[in-house]
Order: sequence, then structure tokens, then C-alpha cells
Amino acid sequence: MRSDTLRVLLWQRALDPHIGRWSLPGGRLRADEDVETSIRRQLAEKVDIRELRHVEQLAVFSAPDRVPGPRVVATAFLGLVPSDADPVVPEDTAWHDVDALPRTAFDHEAIILRARDRLRSKLSYTNIGFALAPDAFTLSALRDIYSAALGHKVSATNLQRVLSRRGVLKPTGTTVPPGRSGGRPAALYTFTDTTMQVTDPFAVLRPPGAR
Amino acid sequence: MRSDTLRVLLWQRALDPHIGRWSLPGGRLRADEDVETSIRRQLAEKVDIRELRHVEQLAVFSAPDRVPGPRVVATAFLGLVPSDADPVVPEDTAWHDVDALPRTAFDHEAIILRARDRLRSKLSYTNIGFALAPDAFTLSALRDIYSAALGHKVSATNLQRVLSRRGVLKPTGTTVPPGRSGGRPAALYTFTDTTMQVTDPFAVLRPPGAR
Repeated sequence: MRSDTLRVLLWQRALDPHIGRWSLPGGRLRADEDVETSIRRQLAEKVDIRELRHVEQLAVFSAPDRVPGPRVVATAFLGLVPSDADPVVPEDTAWHDVDALPRTAFDHEAIILRARDRLRSKLSYTNIGFALAPDAFTLSALRDIYSAALGHKVSATNLQRVLSRRGVLKPTGTTVPPGRSGGRPAALYTFTDTTMQVTDPFAVLRPPGAR
Repeated sequence: MRSDTLRVLLWQRALDPHIGRWSLPGGRLRADEDVETSIRRQLAEKVDIRELRHVEQLAVFSAPDRVPGPRVVATAFLGLVPSDADPVVPEDTAWHDVDALPRTAFDHEAIILRARDRLRSKLSYTNIGFALAPDAFTLSALRDIYSAALGHKVSATNLQRVLSRRGVLKPTGTTVPPGRSGGRPAALYTFTDTTMQVTDPFAVLRPPGAR
């Protein structure tokens, strides 16, 4: 989340093929690492992303002609950083609005849109919002994050109701002063958990003894 | 589902490495196919599985030492066939109880257990049961399928209630005669949809105009 829009970090290719187009960070798998180690290493080394709140495998992209020249099969990940993280990204790298992408390299637009759809889907049945929000936030700030990620407006009141009922959200007990327009101080909230959970599985299917 | 247990189709390796151990069907990606085309081809050619009700990428398994010799990165899929499908599997191939696996090759036990956990999780928030059940079934047959897949007993009454309330299940209007122990004829049910859906997303997060 940057400037109240859902963004993706891309770098501009300096060499052919697809010189000048925007590309997802990544690169080749080393002999001594698995794919998750590799993507974490490359994000840290290349674009200074060191604190991922949530990482999951998105999909393998393997169409035979997806990249010119020798075949390249890509394992794509969805990685989320909170809205207040501010990595020092290199000059050739920038945050792009997912709904207004520049010209991308290879099949990277399809990968980005698949990641956006995965995020949107998980926002509707998990607590994954924890990975986008700061540690503490007002309900209106959370509404802006959900609205941007989902691509449509959400009511702060309804959001608070549904997330609280499912035990995902709790008040911190502190407030922030009102803005220049006055009004009451706004309560700060936090997510109860920082690992992804399905928030409302069919209770009747839970194993005996589970909460 | 075979004999009221959750099973996985494995073949016994005839060559080293890991001769005699049981292995997931699969093989190398051809130059002219993507990973899903490849797994569907290999299931059809090698083990006569031609009708998969549901297929999804599970994960990439890429630990550097997962297979002896030259490095092999595996893209694993979860593929489900209904309980009444009866493919003609080769002599070296058999259905194994997921909870009582024989000695498996490489990291295949970890892959199988990951697939089992993915299925269990999705049974609790999607309609994925459609991919395990026959086209029409009694509630007690469906209870047996869910109980075996989840690894614990589920009540047929509760299952019918939760799946019907979410619009996943509907009666066909037909019945089957009672068994030898007598009683009333049992109603037959069917799943309303045969593509996977999250059955109960947070309604407040749905886009305007969506059902």
C-alpha cells in the first residue's frame, strides 16, 4: 500500500530482451538454495525488501514461450509488506499502481494480476490484512487499505463488525488525537494474529476438541 | 476415496535410486508443454487417470538435496477423482491410505501430507467435496467421504445443514431403496457447482452489485 493504492514493486530492464519494460524482482535459483530462500535473498539484495509480513507461493508459470531464448520456468511468490515499511529502493525500481501498470516484461502482468486476485480472495476469508496494515491503525486507515486492495469502497463500520466478530481485530486501548477538522479522538486497533488463518471455517467440520 | 479411506495413487519404483519405494506419478516437463499439461499427460499415459474433477498447483518442492544426483525441482499438484471413478491402473501402481503410507521415495511423503492438509483446509471453507463425491449420493455416503478426508467423524445432519445453508448442496428429488436393515428410502443429493468456490466470503467485502 502506497498513497492509498495497492502497488507492486517493479524494476526497469536495462538490457534486452524487453529493454525498458518493467519487471518483477527475481532471478535464478542458486544450487544451494530452495525457491523461498532464493526469493527472500533476491528481494533483500536487489530491492532492499527485508521485512516481508507474509510470503506464499503463488504459482508456477511455465508456458514454453513465456521468455525468449532458452526455456525459463518461474515460481512466482506473493510477498506483502506493511503500508508503513519504507525500503530504500534502487533508482531503477519503483512502486506501481496494480490497476495502472506500465508496459511489463514477458508474462509479468499476468503474474501481477494473479497475485492481486489471490490477495483479494484471501482478504474475504482470512486475516491476511495484518500483512498490509501497520501494527496499530484507526478504522478509517484500515478501511482505506481494504478498499484499495479490493478495488471498491468498504464501510469502516461493517469492516470493524465482521473482523471483530471473527476475532481478527482488537482495540489497543489507545487513541490518536483528532485531525484538523476536529471530532473525537480515534481508537487504535491491531490484528490479533500475524500468521495467516482462515477466519471462519465450517465449525461442524472442526476436529473434536479444537476451538 | 477408496473403501471409505482417503487414498493416494502411487507406483513402485523398479530402478535405483530408491528401488522398491513408492512414488507419486509424474515425470519430466517436455519442451512443448506447461506444467499442468504435463501432469495431465503423465497421469493419463502412466496410470490411466483421465478424469480429474479438480486440479490445482500445490507447491514447488526445491530443496537442493531432495533427489540424489542432478538437481530436480518438482511442481506438485493436488488432483482429485470422484469416489466412483475406477481407472485401470498398471500392475506396479496402487491406491494407498494417506494415513498409513508405505515407504516412499525422496520427499514424496511430505508432498502427500501437504496435499492432504490442503484438501482438509479447503473442505472447511469451499465446496471442494464435489470433486470427491459421485454425481449423486446419500447424506450418509457424503458423511463417510468427509469423515475420511478430514480424519475424524462428522455428523450427517450437521454436514447437510451447513452445506445446504451455504447453497453448496441440493436434493435431486430422487431416493434410493433402504438397505437390508430396512427403514425409509434415503434421499439423493448433488453438489450445485463443479468448480471450486469459497462458500462464505465476508459479505461486507463483496463488490457492489455482486450476489
